[in-house]
Amino acid sequence: MVTLKELADKCGVSTATVSNAINGKSNISEATRLRILQMIEETGYKPNFMARNLRINPKRTIGLIIEELAAFSSTLIIEGIMRYFEVQKYETILYNMRVYSNSNWINDEEFMQTGVSKAVGELLSKQVSGIIHVAEHSRTLKYYNQSLPVPVVISYAYPDERKIPYVSIDDETSTAKMAEYILSKGHKKIAMICGLKDNLHAQKRYNSFKRVLNEHNVPFDENLCVFTGWNRDAGKEAAAKVLKDGVTAVFCHNDFIAAGVYDYLYEHNLQPGKDLLVTGFDDHIVSTYLHPQITTMRLPLLEIGQKSAELMDNLLKNNQESCIEGFEIPCELIKR
Amino acid sequence: MVTLKELADKCGVSTATVSNAINGKSNISEATRLRILQMIEETGYKPNFMARNLRINPKRTIGLIIEELAAFSSTLIIEGIMRYFEVQKYETILYNMRVYSNSNWINDEEFMQTGVSKAVGELLSKQVSGIIHVAEHSRTLKYYNQSLPVPVVISYAYPDERKIPYVSIDDETSTAKMAEYILSKGHKKIAMICGLKDNLHAQKRYNSFKRVLNEHNVPFDENLCVFTGWNRDAGKEAAAKVLKDGVTAVFCHNDFIAAGVYDYLYEHNLQPGKDLLVTGFDDHIVSTYLHPQITTMRLPLLEIGQKSAELMDNLLKNNQESCIEGFEIPCELIKR
Repeated sequence: MVTLKELADKCGVSTATVSNAINGKSNISEATRLRILQMIEETGYKPNFMARNLRINPKRTIGLIIEELAAFSSTLIIEGIMRYFEVQKYETILYNMRVYSNSNWINDEEFMQTGVSKAVGELLSKQVSGIIHVAEHSRTLKYYNQSLPVPVVISYAYPDERKIPYVSIDDETSTAKMAEYILSKGHKKIAMICGLKDNLHAQKRYNSFKRVLNEHNVPFDENLCVFTGWNRDAGKEAAAKVLKDGVTAVFCHNDFIAAGVYDYLYEHNLQPGKDLLVTGFDDHIVSTYLHPQITTMRLPLLEIGQKSAELMDNLLKNNQESCIEGFEIPCELIKR
Repeated sequence: MVTLKELADKCGVSTATVSNAINGKSNISEATRLRILQMIEETGYKPNFMARNLRINPKRTIGLIIEELAAFSSTLIIEGIMRYFEVQKYETILYNMRVYSNSNWINDEEFMQTGVSKAVGELLSKQVSGIIHVAEHSRTLKYYNQSLPVPVVISYAYPDERKIPYVSIDDETSTAKMAEYILSKGHKKIAMICGLKDNLHAQKRYNSFKRVLNEHNVPFDENLCVFTGWNRDAGKEAAAKVLKDGVTAVFCHNDFIAAGVYDYLYEHNLQPGKDLLVTGFDDHIVSTYLHPQITTMRLPLLEIGQKSAELMDNLLKNNQESCIEGFEIPCELIKR
């Protein structure tokens, strides 16, 4: 193996210039850079610690594709993944797609496919042994329909046709728990403010809630139910539509919508918790800062991360075909 | 340069086995792995895409050392860094120290020094051209006193003696704005609930607040002032100590402390905003979910990230010595 000094001599430049070429600094000419890089190839000089690392430390690296790091769900899922991998001695490389931060729309399939392909390419060039895709919310991901040289696990969403292991939440069971809680408090006329109509979470929560009411012989009234956005303003607007005479409880599909209902109640001099039971979903931190604090469903974000990492670990340690599993983890009812 | 096939032949194994050895898979013997890795060194075979990448794409990669990804400040600072680097065509590699997630104490200097050294080592082995250290809160970091082969920028904290560029917030100016706002509302007997006594933010906010009151000839009463923890429970406990007769306003050193004051007021059938003006700091999302929403100072997190990235860009493009600068960005008063 040539040393850095020998390589520099062969190129007729200083060792600093070689370092600059390797590190992509802009203060050398393109011709010099190319001459140095060609010499690196010819001599087999290793400009990085890679070979030494390989020998000392055959640690595997897993690439994480994060749709949006700034999403509240992402950091806890990542923490779950990293917690598992720290024990199992994997490294991680994180790729942040910045879907929302870049003002893009996650349902733009072409944009997403291009973005995921770029992310996969960069992670593969960094020699990852596997890829975990951390979705911003659950939906069916079609980005991994082409075979990749490394295994993929989908975290907080579902795969399309190809058999890819995944971990998401169990919206049906979780919503059923919430519906039963509301019914156990004696409510008979219950409104529901749902998320976006084309959203998988919203559809599952809607269906499950309707089913449980029917099972308990409590009439489900379509007029007390509306699909809307996932934010506070949408919740406030929706409240005006569904909070009709006699409604004593409202199940909101997330905590922001619930906060919007609080806003509506305050504006009408009504008292949340007293005049109307308002429940949420997610156990976002804001749910404890509303007064009174709201009853909600805690997303099992840490568990989703840990389980996703475990599935990847299984894929890498065992025969892949035997490890294709999907998991839906129920949320926990947080009574407040 | 040998090809993968030639390398495999020299080792007497299949190309798949070579790939497995390189990727650290566990399904080959340690003896085989070592033989392959030795041969890689001897032949100068490059097991990764590095050389090709260097030639095609001399993009620079910046390593980000994040003390705690789950801290609310981290994701926005990272977003600021990535936003700048996307335009300037840098890549980033993120290393999450997980200080709190791992139940460690950020003031444990030995633990932190070991953790930072490990992070730096891993990032250097991945050939980063520079390192940005994203702190969880502002303090003096002593971890970078030894020279590194790449430049360092400190984000949301201060360097020790060595000349390292940094970006943090301007606690003095920001607190002065808040103090003047409270005074402009006619308050004369103002309490202050400070963060931890050994914390730089708490010290600066305390001093600045005291100074502004003095400048306005409003008496500063030590008995209306207490240092406590940064959380809601601490705020509630502290409220019991400082909310004495005649106090009409309280400046809290963060929004969680302010929420604790709300809790105290509710328990005593007092109305936040009406019986007592409560102000916070940070503009954490929870500050808008308290009712009434609180007036607070917005941390310039995106700007800190963008400025940190810009400083790194300057360091890499120009002579380092000319680029050693420190910036303190003021927070914005958010009146509610």
